[in-house]
Amino acid sequence: MKKITVFDSTLRDGAQAEGVSFSVEDKIKIVKTLDELGVGYIEAGNPGSNPKDMEFFDRIRSIELKNSTIAAFGSTRRRGISPSDDNNLQALINAGTKTVAIFGKSWDFHVTDIIGATLQENLEMIYDTIAYLKEQGKEVVFDAEHFFDGYKENPEYALKTLSSAVQAGVDCVCLCDTNGGTFPEEIYDITKKVLEAFDVTVGIHAHNDCGMAVANSIMAVKAGAEHVQGTFTGFGERCGNANLSTIIGNLQVKRDYICIPEDNISSLTHTARKVSEIANLQLSIRSPFVGKCAFAHKGGMHVDGVLKNSRSFEHIDPSIVGNERKFLTSEVSGRTTILSMIQKIVPGMEKNSPETGKVIDRLKELEYEGYQFEGAEGGFELLVRKTLGKYKPFFELETFKIIGEHPPLAEGQTASAVIKVKVDDKYEITAAEGDGPVNALDKALRKALEVFYPTLSDVHLTDYKVRVLDSNSATASKVRVLIESSDGDDTWTTVGVSKDIIEASWIALVDSIEYKLIKDIEQKFKQYL
Amino acid sequence: MKKITVFDSTLRDGAQAEGVSFSVEDKIKIVKTLDELGVGYIEAGNPGSNPKDMEFFDRIRSIELKNSTIAAFGSTRRRGISPSDDNNLQALINAGTKTVAIFGKSWDFHVTDIIGATLQENLEMIYDTIAYLKEQGKEVVFDAEHFFDGYKENPEYALKTLSSAVQAGVDCVCLCDTNGGTFPEEIYDITKKVLEAFDVTVGIHAHNDCGMAVANSIMAVKAGAEHVQGTFTGFGERCGNANLSTIIGNLQVKRDYICIPEDNISSLTHTARKVSEIANLQLSIRSPFVGKCAFAHKGGMHVDGVLKNSRSFEHIDPSIVGNERKFLTSEVSGRTTILSMIQKIVPGMEKNSPETGKVIDRLKELEYEGYQFEGAEGGFELLVRKTLGKYKPFFELETFKIIGEHPPLAEGQTASAVIKVKVDDKYEITAAEGDGPVNALDKALRKALEVFYPTLSDVHLTDYKVRVLDSNSATASKVRVLIESSDGDDTWTTVGVSKDIIEASWIALVDSIEYKLIKDIEQKFKQYL
Repeated sequence: MKKITVFDSTLRDGAQAEGVSFSVEDKIKIVKTLDELGVGYIEAGNPGSNPKDMEFFDRIRSIELKNSTIAAFGSTRRRGISPSDDNNLQALINAGTKTVAIFGKSWDFHVTDIIGATLQENLEMIYDTIAYLKEQGKEVVFDAEHFFDGYKENPEYALKTLSSAVQAGVDCVCLCDTNGGTFPEEIYDITKKVLEAFDVTVGIHAHNDCGMAVANSIMAVKAGAEHVQGTFTGFGERCGNANLSTIIGNLQVKRDYICIPEDNISSLTHTARKVSEIANLQLSIRSPFVGKCAFAHKGGMHVDGVLKNSRSFEHIDPSIVGNERKFLTSEVSGRTTILSMIQKIVPGMEKNSPETGKVIDRLKELEYEGYQFEGAEGGFELLVRKTLGKYKPFFELETFKIIGEHPPLAEGQTASAVIKVKVDDKYEITAAEGDGPVNALDKALRKALEVFYPTLSDVHLTDYKVRVLDSNSATASKVRVLIESSDGDDTWTTVGVSKDIIEASWIALVDSIEYKLIKDIEQKFKQYL
Repeated sequence: MKKITVFDSTLRDGAQAEGVSFSVEDKIKIVKTLDELGVGYIEAGNPGSNPKDMEFFDRIRSIELKNSTIAAFGSTRRRGISPSDDNNLQALINAGTKTVAIFGKSWDFHVTDIIGATLQENLEMIYDTIAYLKEQGKEVVFDAEHFFDGYKENPEYALKTLSSAVQAGVDCVCLCDTNGGTFPEEIYDITKKVLEAFDVTVGIHAHNDCGMAVANSIMAVKAGAEHVQGTFTGFGERCGNANLSTIIGNLQVKRDYICIPEDNISSLTHTARKVSEIANLQLSIRSPFVGKCAFAHKGGMHVDGVLKNSRSFEHIDPSIVGNERKFLTSEVSGRTTILSMIQKIVPGMEKNSPETGKVIDRLKELEYEGYQFEGAEGGFELLVRKTLGKYKPFFELETFKIIGEHPPLAEGQTASAVIKVKVDDKYEITAAEGDGPVNALDKALRKALEVFYPTLSDVHLTDYKVRVLDSNSATASKVRVLIESSDGDDTWTTVGVSKDIIEASWIALVDSIEYKLIKDIEQKFKQYL
């Protein structure tokens, strides 16, 4: 078992991603989450460039962490200034972290053309800065910016920059593929060369501009790197940084490395989801190891195979990383998936029973019309009930009429709806106004039915999605509407399809309400069922 | 320059992704989009398992493609059945494609434990199926399912399965990492071994379960593979397939390979966005090469560096792949891009003019409200005109009223609309029925305006899309409507945003009509302008 140091830069390089902006509170939450998992280092900001970061460093000092060491980030001293006179370096020291990461130039073109220094000056900037920080008792990581691009154009100079760092007593040189343009085999070869040249811990910092940041990190480790930088879920400037949750999965679950304490690997999924949540970025459903669909099977043969032996279509057991298997329903999915859903409603139903066949036929018909029950488990349950006769309507719609007007009646009231429903022998007629016709109809329907079913007042819609199918029939196109509802305890999704968006919404609304009422009955009369 | 065959499976393996469900219409649009780019092969479905796919194959036969060959997908014959008696194989032949891809088992464990055949039977199933398809005159690709997992456990048997395919006359053996669990160096080594053993074209089919599908494909090509399978934007079952837009960028822009016709590489971004749009999946903003943020810079030092020399923080020039640079924090943001669009309408406008500033301010306001003009060039032109005073309304809306009714008036007539418009001093009041309120309003508006502007009768809507923004406000959520219109010569797209879908549609409809009328004036009075 070889030990790999995981160095997370979600709070520093990750903050360069579009749409990301952390409050101090957010940063502290993410630190605690990563510490809980057991990430070795957390690079938390650049105190010299950002006053908000200084507030964070002040606060984090008083928080005790179990596993993680906090690192502050900054650059080598400016030209012609001694480290003790450099404000950014002073801010870095004042951040009071045990560890600092210092980036400096390793690509000759950057030295001469971007910062306008001489090649010799740059070597001195690296040496002086690191020597000074070591005198201050810091653990120092040198981020050799653009190392691979630099090495490809001028290997001798690129290695000299590392040599300056090593001579100054650096603890780790981290080779950065800053522009993300390097290929895996190059990363491997160049990292190997560095390890041959220096007796120092080597790290890798990869970006995803060629979609290969994870593979590049893995290849560097294969070449001997022992320190891996990235962001936990991969977000960062441009195409993002190397995704640490994927790298940890690859190295610790599939290879013989220790990245985080062994017992914690089952928190990998939870940690990735929590970090995304705090950052307010949707975690891709397809994220390796940790995404909602990382172990989702749709093809019928795949579903059958996994049920026989999960190895057949899963590279690891999802529970190892705290994720779970999922079967999606669709026209390509086979009997087995559908059966397992039917059995939730009618336990004991068999795979080849005529009832299963009936449900499949009905499902195919509806999918042909444009329905899709994947992710609409509420709608699917009603479909099964209706097909198998395990259902009786809770109300009848007599009529509705919707009126949309321009100019609008009032702000936020562009439409009104009148509805008449019948429950047993009683009629209820009522009306409501809303923001558009669907909203008005939704309100009127609930208002009418709450008279008979008071628990409906607990239900509110939490999501509404519209997808135009066959969109080149233009405004007469079919639409599919997905509605997600919640009553505080449970959340369910229903679906409707029609050429008329109002009718499609109506179908999904009615299913949503019926689903709730069935759930209530099951709850209340459990003992009789 | 080495040639690589790109084999796109967006329509087959991509359809295994959660949330993806293609209509026949969608599939045809994607085929045309990929053909336009110059993708070599398009695997378009499994006619044996899916009746909707058969309808597609019937229709695609009559469409002439410039670059792409259509392939149908199926499996080796079933056990104990001859190929000519196997329904799935017959369906495959009936699909009438020049090329077929056949998957078969290469992992001994799958043969014995999943399909319950003997190892010898499986070899015969592969041989018989391919020999039969070759007799029928097909070009045959053999997808060696789980080849890498199989090779790692029983290399001798895995190679035997390829040998059966080669002996039967296969055109290409494609090595599949079906479970996506293989590492780049393994892919390289094993692919090399296959190439040493057989004189046949070798392909690679990688999945992204370890986040390394792109790198794995690149490593296979480095080992000598000449055929690469994937999906265009990477979606697919579980963590997705190898992302072809990334692979094409890597191989053709950064290495010496030809994947698509050289002149078309600048359409890479456009193609990826269009495919995502048709599939109704959001393209990740961080997609390598083609994402909205693939060349977005936020860090101050990065922005400065890129302005001095774009090489400093960009691995390629974004325009090569038809993408563009973006500065996220800087006020320079997008000016150059926007300017080039303004100059189409007002030639000679300068970058730092107050007018350019006004357009940028207005654009920011509208984007904040949820507008998005990428792909809505018609709407953007009207925005520029309105902001710069180069616009006068063609009509005024007095009132409209829409009535939706249940039960419907008649089949396909669930709503009616009454509209009153004013042109100069004349009023026109009229009404129409339609399939839903938007369709009724659309018809009524055109009917009223055609009285004044007869050329509007040439215009028809060719596409209608709805996207719910901020979807957890449920039925009161904001929606963005995109309408694509055509008059036979030109096609343009306009956009509207509102909490009321009718209002959002109205805004986009009015812009569409005004765009057409401005175009007519420009045409007619060219010499005076």
